[in-house]
Amino acid sequence: MAMQVKNDSVASMIEWLAKYGKPEDEGVTRLLYSPAWTEAQNALKEKMDCIGLQAYFDCVGNLFGRLPGTTCNSKTILTGSHIDTVVKGGKYDGAYGIIASLLAVERLVKLYGLPKKTIEVVSFCEEEGSRFPITFWGSRNINNMYSLNDAANLIDSDGVSLIQAMCDAGFDSKNYTPPTRTDIETFIEIHIEQGIVLEKNQKTIGIVSHIVGQRRFNIKINGDSNHAGTTPMKYRKDAITLAAEFIHFTTDLANEENSDLVATFGKILAKPNVPNVIAEEVQISLDIRHHDDAALDHFCERIFSYLKDKAAYSDFKLSIKQWMDVKPIAMDADLNRCIEEITTIKNIPYQYIVSGAGHDSQVFGSKCPTALLFVPSAGGISHSPKEYTNTEDLEKGIEVLTELLYKLAY
Amino acid sequence: MAMQVKNDSVASMIEWLAKYGKPEDEGVTRLLYSPAWTEAQNALKEKMDCIGLQAYFDCVGNLFGRLPGTTCNSKTILTGSHIDTVVKGGKYDGAYGIIASLLAVERLVKLYGLPKKTIEVVSFCEEEGSRFPITFWGSRNINNMYSLNDAANLIDSDGVSLIQAMCDAGFDSKNYTPPTRTDIETFIEIHIEQGIVLEKNQKTIGIVSHIVGQRRFNIKINGDSNHAGTTPMKYRKDAITLAAEFIHFTTDLANEENSDLVATFGKILAKPNVPNVIAEEVQISLDIRHHDDAALDHFCERIFSYLKDKAAYSDFKLSIKQWMDVKPIAMDADLNRCIEEITTIKNIPYQYIVSGAGHDSQVFGSKCPTALLFVPSAGGISHSPKEYTNTEDLEKGIEVLTELLYKLAY
Repeated sequence: MAMQVKNDSVASMIEWLAKYGKPEDEGVTRLLYSPAWTEAQNALKEKMDCIGLQAYFDCVGNLFGRLPGTTCNSKTILTGSHIDTVVKGGKYDGAYGIIASLLAVERLVKLYGLPKKTIEVVSFCEEEGSRFPITFWGSRNINNMYSLNDAANLIDSDGVSLIQAMCDAGFDSKNYTPPTRTDIETFIEIHIEQGIVLEKNQKTIGIVSHIVGQRRFNIKINGDSNHAGTTPMKYRKDAITLAAEFIHFTTDLANEENSDLVATFGKILAKPNVPNVIAEEVQISLDIRHHDDAALDHFCERIFSYLKDKAAYSDFKLSIKQWMDVKPIAMDADLNRCIEEITTIKNIPYQYIVSGAGHDSQVFGSKCPTALLFVPSAGGISHSPKEYTNTEDLEKGIEVLTELLYKLAY
Repeated sequence: MAMQVKNDSVASMIEWLAKYGKPEDEGVTRLLYSPAWTEAQNALKEKMDCIGLQAYFDCVGNLFGRLPGTTCNSKTILTGSHIDTVVKGGKYDGAYGIIASLLAVERLVKLYGLPKKTIEVVSFCEEEGSRFPITFWGSRNINNMYSLNDAANLIDSDGVSLIQAMCDAGFDSKNYTPPTRTDIETFIEIHIEQGIVLEKNQKTIGIVSHIVGQRRFNIKINGDSNHAGTTPMKYRKDAITLAAEFIHFTTDLANEENSDLVATFGKILAKPNVPNVIAEEVQISLDIRHHDDAALDHFCERIFSYLKDKAAYSDFKLSIKQWMDVKPIAMDADLNRCIEEITTIKNIPYQYIVSGAGHDSQVFGSKCPTALLFVPSAGGISHSPKEYTNTEDLEKGIEVLTELLYKLAY
C-alpha cells in the first residue's frame, strides 16, 4: 500500500485539538469532564462525522468513531488514545494517538473504502489521573475493570465529585450501565515516547515490547536529633546519612544490574531540617520500574535487605511502606512482528523498547492482543508545554499505523 | 583547700534561676532583653548583693558582681557565662556557669575573705543568637569586637529592633559608650558539655583544649528534571543521586579521617520533590568543625574536589557558597595544666576535650588566657527541656572552679 491522499495535515490537526484547553499559551490543560474536555470531545465527534465515521459516546464519555466492517458480525479493531491531559501539559500526549488514528482511518477509507473488519477510533475520556485520584477511567470501564462504584467517593481539588462532574459534562450517572465492550479483537495505540531513547538512538518508531511494572514505596528512617558540633561522628544516628547511603547503593545497583530497571528517589524530607542539627528523621520516596516482575522482586530484595541490615546495625528505626504495585504487561508478539515487517519494508528506523510510563494499552494488554507504538519526543520532554515531536516523525507514525490497520482489517 | 561550707545548693539555685522564663514547663525561654531576661538579671543582681559582691550592669546589660582584690590596682579574674537561652531550652546551658561562679565566690569569701586579685562574676546578656541574628553580643562588647553599629539594623521575628528591646529592658542606647574591659587578666567559664563524650567515657570534668573552628556551606546541585519511568538510568542527571553520593563520601571520610572532625548535612531540599519525577535541584547544608584550621582546609579540599569532579563528569551545575568561617581557638595551656593538677589531686575523673559548640570563652580566648570546663550532659542532650546534669557532677564542677579561682586570686 502506498499513501497517495492527504487532507488534514497531522501538524494542523495537533494545533486544532490543542486549542481546546489552551487559553493562555501555557501548555494544554484538559482535565476530565471540564469545559475544555467537553469542547474537545464534541469537536472530535464532529470531525468523525465529517470523515464518515459513526460517532457516539458511551455512558462515561469515551468517544468512538465506527467504520463498520463488511464481514457480518466482525469483531472490532480498536485504535486511539486519551483526550485528557495533565495540568499545563503538552499538545501531543494522548492527542497524537487520537489524531493519528483518525487520519489513518480517513486515508484508508479514501483509498480502499470500507474494511472487512470493523475499525473504531477511540478518544478515551481519561487516563492521566490529573483531576481525580483515579487513572484509566475510560479504558478500564470498557474492560469491566471499573464501574461507577469505583468513582463513588472521588472528588477533585475543588471538592467537586467525579459523579457530579460527569453529569455536568452530559453523562448523568442515572444513565450508567457498564460500558463493557466484548467485541474488541485488537487494540492499537500510537503515542509519543515521553523519553529520550528513540532520539538518542536516532529511531523513528519504537515497538513497545512491554509496559513496565511499577512499585512505589514510602521509606521513613528515624535516628537521633543531636548537636552538630558536640556529637562525634561515632556517636551519631544521622538519618540523612543512612538515607544517602541507601540512595547511593540503590542507584549504583540500578546502574549496574540491569539497563532496563529504573529507580527514582524523587522526594526527600528531613526533620528538623536545620543546618546545625543532626537530622532525626528522613522520609524518601522510591519508584522502581521494570518489565519483569521477577527482576523487581530480586532488586527489591537486595536493596531492602541492605537497608534493613544497615538500620539494624546502627539501631535506626525503619518503616518501608509499599503503596503501589502495578504488574508488567507484555504487548502482543505477533502484532509486534507485523509492525517490524512494515517498518523494515518501509525502511523506517525502529527499535524494540520498553515503556516506562503507563498507557491505556496496559489495560487492554491483559484482555486482548495489543500493540503500542512510539514516536520520538524531542529531548525526552513530556508533561510540559515544551513537549514536541517533529512532523516527519508524526507522519511516519501514521504511515505505520495505517499500514498495520490495513493488514488487520482489510 | 577543703570545702566546709554550703549555703544555697547548686540544685536549688538551678531551679530558682529557671523560674525566670519557664511559665509553662516547656523548658526555659529567656531571650535577650525580654521580661523573663530582665527579671532573671535583676534577681541575679540581688543575689550578688546578698553575697556581698558589688553588683552592677554595663550599658548593654552584662551583669557583674565584683569582689575587689586587696592588691592595689590588681587586674580582674572574670568568671561566668550567659543568661540568655534558646527557645524552649534547658535549665543548665549558660545558667550553670553563672550559678557555679556565684557559689564558688560565695564559698571562697566565707572561707578566706577577700582575694588578692579582684574576682568578678559575670552574667553575659547574650550568647545564643536566639532572638536577634547576632551571637556573643555580651562578650564581644566587652572585648571591643562589637559596638552599637553592629546591632543598628537587627530586628527580631516580631519586627522589634535590638536597640528598642535594649531600651525597653532599661539600657537606653543614648547611654551607650563601648563597655570595653581592659582589666581582664583571665577568663574562666564552666558549662555543660552539650555532648555525650564525658558520659560515654565516664568522666566528670572535661578540660577544653580547643574550641572548634566552624565552616558552613550552602551547596546547590542542578541536574535535569525528567520522567521517572521513561528516562533510563544512563540518561539521567538526578540531583538527589549526586547529593546522596556526596553526603555518603563526606560522612565516610569524616568517620575515617579524624576522630575529632564532624561533618553534618542537617538540611536538604529537593525540587520539584515529587515521587515520580527525577529531581532537578537539591540544596544541602554542610557544617564542618575541627580544632585545627589546616585539618579543615584539607578536608574541604578533598570533599569539594570530589564533588566538583563528579558534577563536571556528568554535567551538573554546582554552587558552593560558604557563609560561615569561624577560626578554631586554643584554650590556655597553663590554666589547663593547673586544672589537671586540681582534678588529679581531688581524684576527679577528667579528660581533655574539644568543644564542638561555640562559647563566650572563644571570644576571650583570643584576648586573654582563658579556660573552659565541662560537666557531663545526660545523654548528650542540650537545647531541650530534657537537658540534665546530676547534682554530684554539678558540685564537682563547682569544687574544681572554686579551687582554680583560689589558686589564681588568693
